Amino acid sequence: MTWLWYPADFEIWLGNRFNNRRTERGAMFPPFWKQDSHWATVEFSREYELAKPETIRIYVEGRYNFMFDGKLQFGEPTEWLVPAGRHKINIKVHNPASPPALFIEGETIKSDASWRVTHEDKIWIDENGVAHGSGIYLVPGFWNFNTPSDRPSLFRLAREEWKAVSSHVLSGTSSDEPSNGKATTLLVDFGRETMGYIVLNGIQGHGIVELYYGESEAEALDKDYCETLDKLEVETCPRFVVPESKAFRFVQVVLPKGMTVESVSMEYEYLPQDLASSGSFECSDEELNRIWQVGAYTMDLTTREFMMDGIKRDRWTWSGDAIQSYLMNYYLRFDCDTVKRTIRQLRGKDPVSSHINTILDYTFYWFKSVYDYYQYTGDRDFVCEMYPRMLTLMDYCLGRLSEGWAIGQPDDWVFIDWVDFPMHKRGIVCFEQFLFCKSLETMQLCKDLVGPLSTLQMSNLHLSYPDVDYGAKAAELREKIDKTFWSPAAHAYLHALEPSNLSNPSNLNSQVTKFPSMFAILYGYADEQRQREILEHVMQNPEVPAITTPYMRFYELAALCQLGQHDDVLSEIKAYWGGMLHEGATTFWEKYNPEMKGDEHLTMYGRPYGKSLCHAWGASPVYLLGRYFLGIEPTSPGYTTWQAKPHLSNLDWMRGAVPTPFGPIRIEVSKHKVTLTTPLGVGPGTLFIDGKTISIPPAQATIIDY
Amino acid sequence: MTWLWYPADFEIWLGNRFNNRRTERGAMFPPFWKQDSHWATVEFSREYELAKPETIRIYVEGRYNFMFDGKLQFGEPTEWLVPAGRHKINIKVHNPASPPALFIEGETIKSDASWRVTHEDKIWIDENGVAHGSGIYLVPGFWNFNTPSDRPSLFRLAREEWKAVSSHVLSGTSSDEPSNGKATTLLVDFGRETMGYIVLNGIQGHGIVELYYGESEAEALDKDYCETLDKLEVETCPRFVVPESKAFRFVQVVLPKGMTVESVSMEYEYLPQDLASSGSFECSDEELNRIWQVGAYTMDLTTREFMMDGIKRDRWTWSGDAIQSYLMNYYLRFDCDTVKRTIRQLRGKDPVSSHINTILDYTFYWFKSVYDYYQYTGDRDFVCEMYPRMLTLMDYCLGRLSEGWAIGQPDDWVFIDWVDFPMHKRGIVCFEQFLFCKSLETMQLCKDLVGPLSTLQMSNLHLSYPDVDYGAKAAELREKIDKTFWSPAAHAYLHALEPSNLSNPSNLNSQVTKFPSMFAILYGYADEQRQREILEHVMQNPEVPAITTPYMRFYELAALCQLGQHDDVLSEIKAYWGGMLHEGATTFWEKYNPEMKGDEHLTMYGRPYGKSLCHAWGASPVYLLGRYFLGIEPTSPGYTTWQAKPHLSNLDWMRGAVPTPFGPIRIEVSKHKVTLTTPLGVGPGTLFIDGKTISIPPAQATIIDY
Repeated sequence: MTWLWYPADFEIWLGNRFNNRRTERGAMFPPFWKQDSHWATVEFSREYELAKPETIRIYVEGRYNFMFDGKLQFGEPTEWLVPAGRHKINIKVHNPASPPALFIEGETIKSDASWRVTHEDKIWIDENGVAHGSGIYLVPGFWNFNTPSDRPSLFRLAREEWKAVSSHVLSGTSSDEPSNGKATTLLVDFGRETMGYIVLNGIQGHGIVELYYGESEAEALDKDYCETLDKLEVETCPRFVVPESKAFRFVQVVLPKGMTVESVSMEYEYLPQDLASSGSFECSDEELNRIWQVGAYTMDLTTREFMMDGIKRDRWTWSGDAIQSYLMNYYLRFDCDTVKRTIRQLRGKDPVSSHINTILDYTFYWFKSVYDYYQYTGDRDFVCEMYPRMLTLMDYCLGRLSEGWAIGQPDDWVFIDWVDFPMHKRGIVCFEQFLFCKSLETMQLCKDLVGPLSTLQMSNLHLSYPDVDYGAKAAELREKIDKTFWSPAAHAYLHALEPSNLSNPSNLNSQVTKFPSMFAILYGYADEQRQREILEHVMQNPEVPAITTPYMRFYELAALCQLGQHDDVLSEIKAYWGGMLHEGATTFWEKYNPEMKGDEHLTMYGRPYGKSLCHAWGASPVYLLGRYFLGIEPTSPGYTTWQAKPHLSNLDWMRGAVPTPFGPIRIEVSKHKVTLTTPLGVGPGTLFIDGKTISIPPAQATIIDY
Repeated sequence: MTWLWYPADFEIWLGNRFNNRRTERGAMFPPFWKQDSHWATVEFSREYELAKPETIRIYVEGRYNFMFDGKLQFGEPTEWLVPAGRHKINIKVHNPASPPALFIEGETIKSDASWRVTHEDKIWIDENGVAHGSGIYLVPGFWNFNTPSDRPSLFRLAREEWKAVSSHVLSGTSSDEPSNGKATTLLVDFGRETMGYIVLNGIQGHGIVELYYGESEAEALDKDYCETLDKLEVETCPRFVVPESKAFRFVQVVLPKGMTVESVSMEYEYLPQDLASSGSFECSDEELNRIWQVGAYTMDLTTREFMMDGIKRDRWTWSGDAIQSYLMNYYLRFDCDTVKRTIRQLRGKDPVSSHINTILDYTFYWFKSVYDYYQYTGDRDFVCEMYPRMLTLMDYCLGRLSEGWAIGQPDDWVFIDWVDFPMHKRGIVCFEQFLFCKSLETMQLCKDLVGPLSTLQMSNLHLSYPDVDYGAKAAELREKIDKTFWSPAAHAYLHALEPSNLSNPSNLNSQVTKFPSMFAILYGYADEQRQREILEHVMQNPEVPAITTPYMRFYELAALCQLGQHDDVLSEIKAYWGGMLHEGATTFWEKYNPEMKGDEHLTMYGRPYGKSLCHAWGASPVYLLGRYFLGIEPTSPGYTTWQAKPHLSNLDWMRGAVPTPFGPIRIEVSKHKVTLTTPLGVGPGTLFIDGKTISIPPAQATIIDY
């Protein structure tokens, strides 16, 4: 028994609350792409065959009607006696404020995934009172709202009281001596980056309290340039909790003259996770352990209503950031619900009128994220739910091609990466073609998985959507990319065709960056020979400009692992993420350039504290260590088969857990021994170690000496 | 200065309240097609060049931010000092509950149609803090909310206290003697069909009051089958107003034992109209005058938040009903705002996932209604507003054709009419092809009127929408219709191609109904020869089954007028609408079959009171008398040129007013004299009388003796 709604409508509604909560220096800052709404009226229905009568209780979020065996009943009944036999229940709910939702409690009649929901039943009555027509009935959306009082519209994250680590009086009098006509300013430190609601305890007096938040001490002290702040009217009371959560480590509290507080604490806000089924990593290198832990904490802070990018500033869902969060999550919490919520929220509703987050590449990552999810979880139902929305999004992409290439139209943002070297993003960018090609392949995989559209109840959509052979389109594009962009002389995929004359190959911009070549490796588009060329001439070539965001370092280091460069990757992780730790990071950053000094690290977007110091894409060691060092991944969807390719590199030992739908696979590796423990449900695995291939039987502990 | 919102979002929001208010025997009864929502977040913007500084006041419905010259300001400022010079204001508003709306009050800075609005500005900030991108900026929506306190979300119709005509105690004690343990039942009569809120005055006691509404006395007295009812808990109070408006002439009030009321009255609910600029009709025939007046009252009752079909039962917006209301309205109130609101509401938002009201023909009427509106008003801006939504709706239609024919797909309702004779609606129905052909022609007209899509700021839409030559498609279809459906033997367009084998012409269903042939006349698809054949062999052929709804009688009588049969039409109006008056009608009905007797007239949809006794499509004499007897119509958009073709028929005299955007044209016709008075603004006219053609100069009174 659970609350039901129209699929993805809870996410769309929650997403609007989530994305519109961002502020910038006290101004509300909503996204710049369209925000959809839930369907205000939907109908839930189910037929039952009862052996004996039973009374059901009906709980609804919204105004509703109740149709029993095709007959509308008076008012809004909250109980109904269903006689024995075959009966049909239809409940139509209207709720403009939050998603129309239903909970039915009975002995055999219960609201669950076996119900159906529609936003247009299309059932019309002729002049003789006979009903006709056929709507589109879908499997309803639901999550973990499993009691009548646990209503979806009441959803909020969990909270926990946290004390400050230190609190200093910067000016005025200290908080326990009443000030005499002077404002009091406190600097409060919570010891590490966090997110939640500042709490003022034991308030005496009345006035406007100012709060200046900082991820760094410098930011909290800078009233004029800190990114977030609050000015709130407060009266004498034992405890005042600020209305909106913020991200901070430090907060400067300015009390008006005459006001005192006993202490400043916070309500830490978080999404509860199942720690028992989580991933873990530990090894003989303490710095690496600390990197993994700080990565895990960065992930926990950014895994909230949705996978968020940065907790201080952005606070929106971003598809390019999210796909990395999903992958990290498969090696950390295996929180499938949050992955699904985020994928649904990012996609929103039809019609598609912009790329996801307006970014060309972010649309392409979104496609791939659906299949990644399937690969790690084996959850075909979710692919079926998403496929209609994949279809219309791909239709949008296909409608915006230029001579078959994916280009940035005037209202598109071509992102690729924040780079510290000159690189334009115009014309036919090779990097985008690889992403587009992978999207087409993903469409074909999902199409084959889902089967005929009619089974998705898409009768009114498929008429206007031609049956596209995505696989053929992908193959054709791949050949075109190779022919156009691969340079045997540079041993690299070149950057772009200039926009001035797209069809003239002499118009090639021959800049070499790591982006296209490393995606060719990651997406399996480069054969072994070409992989070797790319490794030498691109990835390890000091002439090719360095990547300075953890975002693209994720892919760079993953590609290097694919190419067997584990030792280099390990020292890079230690140098780069270790570098942030040396700078005092308690969570990982949006961008890190080791060449910067001091407060320079805090700057971005032309603002002194513009950089996010807790950014999901900073946490990639969590993924890299699990996937390429513990080396575990599914080889068929949902770990029905899987492999372990552990790489100890220069470590003495390592051990860890990699989550699966059935619980974690545990692995322990030392110089000559591997121990693998697999939970019941996971299929047979294959261990690759020291040039050997060893079969791992399901559901047991296996010890291999090598 | 006026409140602004995203175009059509007010209508979509109001439409959801409107359409979800329908009840059926106390059960909420929402529509069976999808209901869209307003955009929850939109941005308003405008640049101003100020000669001197001024302070603006900012009123917003929703949470908002305020960006001045590209810089977000703290909080939600309600006043702002704008310095002299060039400045840009952007205000982003989030409001999930009602359309985000803005009102700006300043000396020169005022919220009006010169502002722009977008639901996705697509403006992104690069790593250097530079803004890029381009959204779709539209002319905002607005109406008559012209003061800060007159907020759009507070909109409600006007109300007026009406007393009952009679009130009888049916059982129990009379209302002024306290009952002793018995319920009291009253029957209250308001003298004519009306709509509003029942008011109980001077209540003593406490309990559940039951109200049974009836358009007829029989219905109000039939607790088990009346279509609408209320059961409400009421306590001692001087005045209790029921929460929702209902349509009724009679109401049965059942008071619980121990409760008394002093009197029952009502709050009549209505949309105020400008009577000075209204149309009128008066003639030497008193019955005809009464028919016109009852038609006008029927129209006033059904012209509300939107043009509604029937006030008792349906209470939804219906496109086929509405297009007739619009046409009647052009001869009655010329209430352009309500026409626009209804057209917007019916169309809703993209994506199109069903025909309008799920009905194939209703989609086609919707297209035509946009151009009709332009023809009567000359308001090109509205066509520009609607054109993008016309484009996507036509795209939907084109995606559902079968071999070029418009057919009912499995989830479509093919309506045509409620008929009292056997007629199937399957396969390729000729009637639907004429409507489809007119829709294509309308698309071409509007496309030519609107000009390049880029001027509509449709940059992100037009890429996926191919440039269709609607005119060519229409011409091709018209030829195909003629070839397939015209029968020289029957002198008629035949009914349909059977669905079993659509491409086999021998498969023709040769049933002759009036529907396709009369639309061939109305839409100008039959030449003079064919018109004569249709008149004789179809329209005046007693073998062809009679039309029994005022809905299709509208078109039937219009077609007969086109064919010059004014005398017959006049006697038909007297017989048919006069017939309803003889049955006691105070408003015109959904359906009228003169062969029925007594309470049989109340039945429909298999229910004893299913028929609507106040149905907009019943009011067609208002249109027919204005358009074909007073004979006035625009010959170019918005009465820039116009014609009068008065037909006195067998009347001694007639006079009336026909509204235009500039005020009414007045005409008075007697046997040998026509007086025409035209308001300032109306262009030159042409009078056709007695075989003569006479030019009428603008803005004066012209008297013609003939």
